[in-house]
Amino acid sequence: MLRLFSGPRNVEPLPTHATEIYLVERPRTTINENTFGVRRVALPPVSDGQVLVRVMWVSADPAMRGWLSTMRNYVPPVPVGAHMRAFGVGRALTSARGVPAGSLVTGVFGWRSACVVKATSVQVASLPRDIKPSVLLGALGITGLTAYFGLLNVGSLARGDTVLVSAAAGATGGAAIQIARAQGAHRVIGVAGGPKKCAYVRDVLGADACIDYKAPNYRAALRAACPEGIDVYFDNVGGETLEEALRLMKRGARVVLCGAISVYNKTEYPGPRNYLALLTQRATMKGFIVTDFESEFPRALKQMTRWIGEGKITVREDVTEGLENAPAALARLFDGKNIGKVVVRVIPEEEKSSKTMSKL
Amino acid sequence: MLRLFSGPRNVEPLPTHATEIYLVERPRTTINENTFGVRRVALPPVSDGQVLVRVMWVSADPAMRGWLSTMRNYVPPVPVGAHMRAFGVGRALTSARGVPAGSLVTGVFGWRSACVVKATSVQVASLPRDIKPSVLLGALGITGLTAYFGLLNVGSLARGDTVLVSAAAGATGGAAIQIARAQGAHRVIGVAGGPKKCAYVRDVLGADACIDYKAPNYRAALRAACPEGIDVYFDNVGGETLEEALRLMKRGARVVLCGAISVYNKTEYPGPRNYLALLTQRATMKGFIVTDFESEFPRALKQMTRWIGEGKITVREDVTEGLENAPAALARLFDGKNIGKVVVRVIPEEEKSSKTMSKL
Repeated sequence: MLRLFSGPRNVEPLPTHATEIYLVERPRTTINENTFGVRRVALPPVSDGQVLVRVMWVSADPAMRGWLSTMRNYVPPVPVGAHMRAFGVGRALTSARGVPAGSLVTGVFGWRSACVVKATSVQVASLPRDIKPSVLLGALGITGLTAYFGLLNVGSLARGDTVLVSAAAGATGGAAIQIARAQGAHRVIGVAGGPKKCAYVRDVLGADACIDYKAPNYRAALRAACPEGIDVYFDNVGGETLEEALRLMKRGARVVLCGAISVYNKTEYPGPRNYLALLTQRATMKGFIVTDFESEFPRALKQMTRWIGEGKITVREDVTEGLENAPAALARLFDGKNIGKVVVRVIPEEEKSSKTMSKL
Repeated sequence: MLRLFSGPRNVEPLPTHATEIYLVERPRTTINENTFGVRRVALPPVSDGQVLVRVMWVSADPAMRGWLSTMRNYVPPVPVGAHMRAFGVGRALTSARGVPAGSLVTGVFGWRSACVVKATSVQVASLPRDIKPSVLLGALGITGLTAYFGLLNVGSLARGDTVLVSAAAGATGGAAIQIARAQGAHRVIGVAGGPKKCAYVRDVLGADACIDYKAPNYRAALRAACPEGIDVYFDNVGGETLEEALRLMKRGARVVLCGAISVYNKTEYPGPRNYLALLTQRATMKGFIVTDFESEFPRALKQMTRWIGEGKITVREDVTEGLENAPAALARLFDGKNIGKVVVRVIPEEEKSSKTMSKL
């Protein structure tokens, strides 16, 4: 029934067990050493319509904080005792309809070294030769698509707009900065934490300005950087930056709610005190979940791939080695330590390991 | 140069002076006895392109609280020492291009018994015989138009939607309840303060339910009244009701920010703590100012007049007698004392005076 992958890797036996990171205890605030555990589990047999996937890379994303909570969300919470939900890139080791063994595949594999999943739940990826598979978790994955649809569809970005992006040194924010640039925004301003990140946002990503939210007089500096106000605010952080952005909105401005990493770990959050600026400015605040745009993914990925080829989108990764370190990789996000996409290498299949900018 | 109004009222001499209510001191919180003063002023001569208007009715609206503040708003604040800005209905006593003497006119006349204004700033009104002029401040004025465009254009109300409206016994909220009904909403729920108002919203305006925000267990009652969640929330109040509405949003819901009377008098407001529900529900919160839809006013007024004729929109007024009592009329709004549109009769020209429902 199963057709084995018949490539050079065929010498490896099919895995019978997997390592997985599972949820031990819901964090009340910060993710900590009691949140996750590691265990070895036996893989189930592969039934018809399923594939066995060896996972190469898994993702760590701010949204995961929400998946750990029982508050109403767009997906059910990860059950206590279950493996952690996560996007991943892997290799199909068995075949099923539409998924030949040996295919590079992406899907919600979880923080697992291998898994048996429905073939209909995986996407077979084809990548230009010079792009490494982990980019399918970043610019050419959910992260890049989030920036793309958030700015263009939800934020209705138009040529000549002034765009503000928070968490601009992060994966989604960084892509948003570059997409805004590529789409002919008049002025693109980033917000990031610390001079190193700000320099990256300006010098590598090409923002007109990047404001350090950890610096004194942060709000005044932000106002000074947007003398004519803003048309689109792509919000990854919430909190004070959202409040200041509401204050800076031009008439008809759009606030794109992508996330709120500054408040995810808090049990109580005051909310944007000046939300009534939406009224006086006839402005819109709109939330979205990227998967709602799934039917348009192929078109967007084509465009993103073109921009990467033209050097308009650059890719930087923050690589953590080893699946067992995935919780630490996630914590990096909330500590604001990462520049670029946080990815975890499950299997050292890739030639090069690097925390520096990868030339595509 | 001036053509005098040649009707039966021609026996009255043209006024040379007017009474006006002016801003003495900006209120820090509540409008109080130090906020406004009354004075008698000489009217300026009527130049070319101007008309002299005898004001019959003036309006008191929640938005006025914002006009008294120096916070950024959609119109400049009323200057200290100047007459209070207000919508009004009056009679043109002189003629100008497009405004024959004797016309019933509406405009931003201010809390004044008479005024000289640019003819281009007044609208000549024509009313069905059985509709009294003060309705031009309510259902057939800015109030009704606000409900109309807020629900239909900003809120994109669709047949089958569940609609929640706060301040539902007020002028705008009441119109919103009835417009939602007339447009085929599946379920229309009001929020109002006290059993008397709630009975009015249900029995007269035709809401499916009306929840008393002053009752214990208010939030639980609201949840129970919206078992399937809500598609459109027409928000006139902000505060706790906005928070609960965000919690009740269905996927793709629209929150129409029309006003926030519960917070206007506060110096500091916490903001909707759960605004991130907009993200998980892919929902939109949008502010608007009705005058942005000015080009569509004629079409909307035609529809509203038709609905009034069909009995689908009923009009109830809260009438205060005498211009000098306009500040008290405004205070009624913030004390939640009114049912229906708060209007002030400047000149006892109308036959009937009544605080009860007026049959149109």
